[in-house]
Amino acid sequence: MADIGVEKASKTTAPRRTQAERRAATENAIIDAFGRLLSREGIGGLGLNALVKEAGVGKKQVYDYFEGLAGVAGAWVRARTVWRSLEDIIGEPWQTFVARGPAEKLRHVALAYAASLRNNPELCALLSGELIGSPEVRAAVEHVRNLVRADFERVLASDPRLSHPDMLSLNLIAYSAATYLGLRAHHQPRYFGFDLSADMSWGMVMGMFDRVLTLADPDRPTS
Amino acid sequence: MADIGVEKASKTTAPRRTQAERRAATENAIIDAFGRLLSREGIGGLGLNALVKEAGVGKKQVYDYFEGLAGVAGAWVRARTVWRSLEDIIGEPWQTFVARGPAEKLRHVALAYAASLRNNPELCALLSGELIGSPEVRAAVEHVRNLVRADFERVLASDPRLSHPDMLSLNLIAYSAATYLGLRAHHQPRYFGFDLSADMSWGMVMGMFDRVLTLADPDRPTS
Repeated sequence: MADIGVEKASKTTAPRRTQAERRAATENAIIDAFGRLLSREGIGGLGLNALVKEAGVGKKQVYDYFEGLAGVAGAWVRARTVWRSLEDIIGEPWQTFVARGPAEKLRHVALAYAASLRNNPELCALLSGELIGSPEVRAAVEHVRNLVRADFERVLASDPRLSHPDMLSLNLIAYSAATYLGLRAHHQPRYFGFDLSADMSWGMVMGMFDRVLTLADPDRPTS
Repeated sequence: MADIGVEKASKTTAPRRTQAERRAATENAIIDAFGRLLSREGIGGLGLNALVKEAGVGKKQVYDYFEGLAGVAGAWVRARTVWRSLEDIIGEPWQTFVARGPAEKLRHVALAYAASLRNNPELCALLSGELIGSPEVRAAVEHVRNLVRADFERVLASDPRLSHPDMLSLNLIAYSAATYLGLRAHHQPRYFGFDLSADMSWGMVMGMFDRVLTLADPDRPTS
């Protein structure tokens, strides 16, 4: 009884939260609910109705604060560091990176991107939505893709040689293969006799990817 | 009234179907229901319960005749020519094909495979199941993959040079990119500023793919 009295007292004396604080708390609750839903149900369980229920908020709040599901997806990616910055993914100082040759840059980014997908089950669950989800979910994924792409565009802009048609081609194909391999590592890891969920097999497949990207360098010396 | 009488008469005089004929009719109904379901609902609507309902049969029949959903998927791919034979996809006589160099063979197959996926919405819907579906659906997709893979293995076996590590690597990466591009053409065609559902854009992207595979040929002459 005494304890309850104390609790009550502390509640009434606690400073009232400002409107901004209450809004931030609601935003956080919505973002966390998005992550929980994705992680527990996969992309198939994602949708505005499910989100509202999970977060215990009203649809109006999701629209007012995030302009809908896509905005929540973007905020989740940014605020929860689901997608790390490209520098972080590259794993080397920017100056070291920019000194590389153009095809080598693309190779480096593609391998780092594939690895970052494989290490990120929730992001993979979300990205698989572009191959399956409802229009609402596909729009949310596209929004996230655009955020991620801005990072890649900074890489492309760092080197005028990367706008050569051969390099644009290499980039598009490397990105396609990297995405597919990263997604498969989560959803259906058996692939070409490898188990992409096992580190050793994944390492071998990344070695094969590396080899192809090295071979595809237009400037490689003849063997 | 007279019409009904005629119908009744023709029913009673029609020869009774044999057990094998009745079984074939049921099998066909199940296979057709599978295709309809996939085409109407996409991979999200596929499952044993939905199939049984759509076909108007019992679960026991699906198990007795097909050993489950995977068997129906395989029968659908084979019986409805969803997956054409590799010779058909390659689009040239086998003898012309086997005379090509090893990297050129892989390039030819990868481009043909991507094109065949793009032209085949139902197959793409099914294959997307390996990135999203329930365990039951994933098992069905894997069964279909194994059928398709048998065709590819025949290509690999046709040329001992294709077992060189560089060629195995090229094959795995080309297949990954081809699958991803084919699936995206259906599910989310906006990609790198292209619209993969438009023939001209698709043609340009395939030109880029072709270029990368040509560059990645270990035996290409230096530029």
